[in-house]
Amino acid sequence: MGWGKSVPVVKLGQGLRLGPGLVLRPGHRLGLLVLLCCLALCPGPIHGDKVLVMPVEGSHWLSMKLLVKELAARGHEMVVLVPETSILIKSSDYHRTEIFRVPFNKAQLDKNVNKLKDDMFRKAPKVTDIFMNVQGLIDFTDMQVKGCEGLLYDEPLMQRLRGEGFKMMLTDPFLPCGSIIADSFNIPVVYFLKGIPCGMEDRAAQCPNPPSYVPRFFSGNTDHMDFLGRVKNMLMYSLESYLCTVMFASFDELTSRYLEKDMTYRELLGHGAIWLLRYDYSFEYPKPTMPNMVHIGGINCGKRDPLPEDLQEFVDESGEDGFVVFTLGSMVSQMPEEKAKQFFDAFSKIPQRVVWRYTGVVPKNAPANVRLMKWLPQNELLGHPNVKAFITHGGTHGTYEGICNGVPMVMLPLFAEQGDNVHRMAVRGVGEVLSLFDLTSEKLVEALNKVINDKSYKEKMMKLSAVHKDRPIEPLDLAVFWSEFVMRHGGAEHLRPAAHDLNWIQYHSLDVFTLLLTIVLIVVIVTVKCCKVCFRKCCGTKRTMKKKSA
Amino acid sequence: MGWGKSVPVVKLGQGLRLGPGLVLRPGHRLGLLVLLCCLALCPGPIHGDKVLVMPVEGSHWLSMKLLVKELAARGHEMVVLVPETSILIKSSDYHRTEIFRVPFNKAQLDKNVNKLKDDMFRKAPKVTDIFMNVQGLIDFTDMQVKGCEGLLYDEPLMQRLRGEGFKMMLTDPFLPCGSIIADSFNIPVVYFLKGIPCGMEDRAAQCPNPPSYVPRFFSGNTDHMDFLGRVKNMLMYSLESYLCTVMFASFDELTSRYLEKDMTYRELLGHGAIWLLRYDYSFEYPKPTMPNMVHIGGINCGKRDPLPEDLQEFVDESGEDGFVVFTLGSMVSQMPEEKAKQFFDAFSKIPQRVVWRYTGVVPKNAPANVRLMKWLPQNELLGHPNVKAFITHGGTHGTYEGICNGVPMVMLPLFAEQGDNVHRMAVRGVGEVLSLFDLTSEKLVEALNKVINDKSYKEKMMKLSAVHKDRPIEPLDLAVFWSEFVMRHGGAEHLRPAAHDLNWIQYHSLDVFTLLLTIVLIVVIVTVKCCKVCFRKCCGTKRTMKKKSA
Repeated sequence: MGWGKSVPVVKLGQGLRLGPGLVLRPGHRLGLLVLLCCLALCPGPIHGDKVLVMPVEGSHWLSMKLLVKELAARGHEMVVLVPETSILIKSSDYHRTEIFRVPFNKAQLDKNVNKLKDDMFRKAPKVTDIFMNVQGLIDFTDMQVKGCEGLLYDEPLMQRLRGEGFKMMLTDPFLPCGSIIADSFNIPVVYFLKGIPCGMEDRAAQCPNPPSYVPRFFSGNTDHMDFLGRVKNMLMYSLESYLCTVMFASFDELTSRYLEKDMTYRELLGHGAIWLLRYDYSFEYPKPTMPNMVHIGGINCGKRDPLPEDLQEFVDESGEDGFVVFTLGSMVSQMPEEKAKQFFDAFSKIPQRVVWRYTGVVPKNAPANVRLMKWLPQNELLGHPNVKAFITHGGTHGTYEGICNGVPMVMLPLFAEQGDNVHRMAVRGVGEVLSLFDLTSEKLVEALNKVINDKSYKEKMMKLSAVHKDRPIEPLDLAVFWSEFVMRHGGAEHLRPAAHDLNWIQYHSLDVFTLLLTIVLIVVIVTVKCCKVCFRKCCGTKRTMKKKSA
Repeated sequence: MGWGKSVPVVKLGQGLRLGPGLVLRPGHRLGLLVLLCCLALCPGPIHGDKVLVMPVEGSHWLSMKLLVKELAARGHEMVVLVPETSILIKSSDYHRTEIFRVPFNKAQLDKNVNKLKDDMFRKAPKVTDIFMNVQGLIDFTDMQVKGCEGLLYDEPLMQRLRGEGFKMMLTDPFLPCGSIIADSFNIPVVYFLKGIPCGMEDRAAQCPNPPSYVPRFFSGNTDHMDFLGRVKNMLMYSLESYLCTVMFASFDELTSRYLEKDMTYRELLGHGAIWLLRYDYSFEYPKPTMPNMVHIGGINCGKRDPLPEDLQEFVDESGEDGFVVFTLGSMVSQMPEEKAKQFFDAFSKIPQRVVWRYTGVVPKNAPANVRLMKWLPQNELLGHPNVKAFITHGGTHGTYEGICNGVPMVMLPLFAEQGDNVHRMAVRGVGEVLSLFDLTSEKLVEALNKVINDKSYKEKMMKLSAVHKDRPIEPLDLAVFWSEFVMRHGGAEHLRPAAHDLNWIQYHSLDVFTLLLTIVLIVVIVTVKCCKVCFRKCCGTKRTMKKKSA
């Protein structure tokens, strides 16, 4: 490896720190100039390590791609495993693509994915949605497990990959394939994720998550709960534990079958070297964390390409009223015509221009201030000085791009963790939440006017943005550093907590409590017995004495 | 504030990253040159914020001083509060010193401090030492509380300080004065520490610390314990909870008396914005951490001045045999004559030269390979290529300097957490532990030969050193960043866990469990009763029917 071996960290404000002993301060003008000339002329990385990448389709890939690209730019050879049904994962010049066959076609996959979101426009959200979501997820992951089997049992491909000498696996543990291959190839694995359903990432990393102040998924709680809120949270926590078992049953089965050892998916995940978690505490409530958890929230905000010329013109000319960005994420570009009409109607009533990712039916009288697009350069648009608000489904990527750029939001959650995401933003006073089911143009206009004209939304968002962006090292650099750390040291064994070697009873010291309680009980019983005997003897003696004296 | 407002983070390997949007990669040769010329010519910080510093005497100050110096170099005005009895905290040109009166003199303080260490040369270590240590600590902290009162109730001084408009308090929470003043002045506080007796830092920061795998102080456990080890750990954990109450009683009293509110010292500490903790996971066992805990282990290794000429010559000329560094820390420069003789005797039997911090009696036949000094440039000596071993008492500073420089150690723990420190190093196979009480020259020679000639010690130490030094940002930079973050944002409120607002019962959800158990019990009882009634009715009917049919 060229530069990858040692990453000298340098901070301008403090001079150039090239290592523990060597610091060039701003005072050292000449030295600085000489050093920097060398820097400008020195060669880039010559060769790197081989990294196997097992991504997850959809928006998950969009941010992992940034890390893959950066590692490639640093000289590493990136090999990305892609199912033949892939939608967003394309081949590119910065990574090699290995396509594997899956026992289903795109139409079947689409049908499966669409199940997850279709009801959102038609039904009012209910508490029981959690079960619907879970069933949808089970169907979805069952299909993905089948896809994974297509790869794992493709012996010639696996044989070839095994022989390539990969130094590391980079994967999204939302699906089990990457972790299983890493274990099978005996290479360290780095996880890249926002989270896994039912908080599996914390369970697998042995990270404590007290239900008294860490709100559970779908609970509607914040980190400050009253008694009933905590009761609800505890019930959701118990429910999650059950759902974890149900939802990951097929992963557990695949893990133990393929690796030929008695191991659950959770145990397998516990062998991960580093967890690159796409959140930070401008978004998430503060809670315990583990030494091998690295927070890279906002990693997707770094990317900023120039806008296409006509779009640039459209937003530049939006003037003082500015414009609104509207997208429901990578998976949803259409909606029922009747619902779309509400949006068009609302947009005709606001002075702002609107850039909307929409590929559905367009009414004849569509307002002129709306620009429809097949795909939005979201982060670039949100970074434009004229942007006034962001209508979003509350996916993690969009939410972070809203935070990075300090844009107040109107949020229309669809499914999965989006409800929790938008709740976090609403609680911080940086946006308004609406329900897609009973959305009307009036409600939308009212919410838009609120977040645009009530200055408190913008002010709070700018404060949140300032805190989020004020960090000692950029999230992408952090992700690169820890990926390369794992390659340099063959893992991160010094960060693995010993809790992994304890079972549930041992971890919670229940066996120890039982012993101590037993000892205390024995001591109490023996003491009481002794006292009784003494008392009897004493009384007996007294009685005898009384009798005698009588 | 000048540069302090925004600290652009730059990494050479990835090009110059000046913010989310602006990255100059090595390819951009010309841009890089232009930028760097500007950088070399741009002005340093013009003015900074005012920081109040309340340090703790002894080695605690030696590393805090590095941060104070760096913050001063970045343009902040540092005001250090120093008791008139101070030994190591001297006035300097990079900070202003405010000296306050204390109701005792240096001799009294020395006597108190000496109590803590005197027995170490005379007595075998015992389990009951924990109580002796605690009593010593109580005496020591009681005296410090008196000193603190001298400052707090010096009305004119406090009035003047209050009016100075400090932006932040930097303090070591080993003593309560800093936190109390910060609360009284209503300024955010940053803690700088290795730890506080009885694990108070974790308790105060709401950091979970499962006793099933986080070894407690003085327990002699590692993070991997068998059943009896876990029982012992749990007992030590319970003991700690008790000791916490006893040891910090005077702090609690002072806190509530001075601040005129019902508040324990632990609650006061919970208001700290950032905990700068002088350890990392090359030293400590992996365990849960909190978002406002920042690990700066090895911060003291950055400092490296040139060696004095004669000392440089002495170690340069040690040749292939090399030399050994020997010091028992900032507090111990002497020892009983008989004990010292064992050391001189041992050193006469090894081929290495020895640099020893010693101010006691020197025997007539002192070996020629020993150089005695009043004060050692420890980190500089340990960084010399000829150094072969480090004889140390196992203080955190020395231990980290051993790790940074990859020098195997022979460890002679004295008191406080030193026993735990050396145990961590011995377990990692990078050093040998001896007891000062029954030390003989033979034992010392044997241990020295072992760590010098058995290559496994050096190899393991070099691996540990590599892991420790492989970090995305230097500890001092990290400490500076978070100190300035607190100044920029008036604290770090987004990192404060909501656990602080819960009492012990609520935190552990005991009230919730009680409710849920009660409900379950009621349901069970009602069900059983119903069943009984049904059963009776059913049987009753049958009996009646039987009777009728009969």
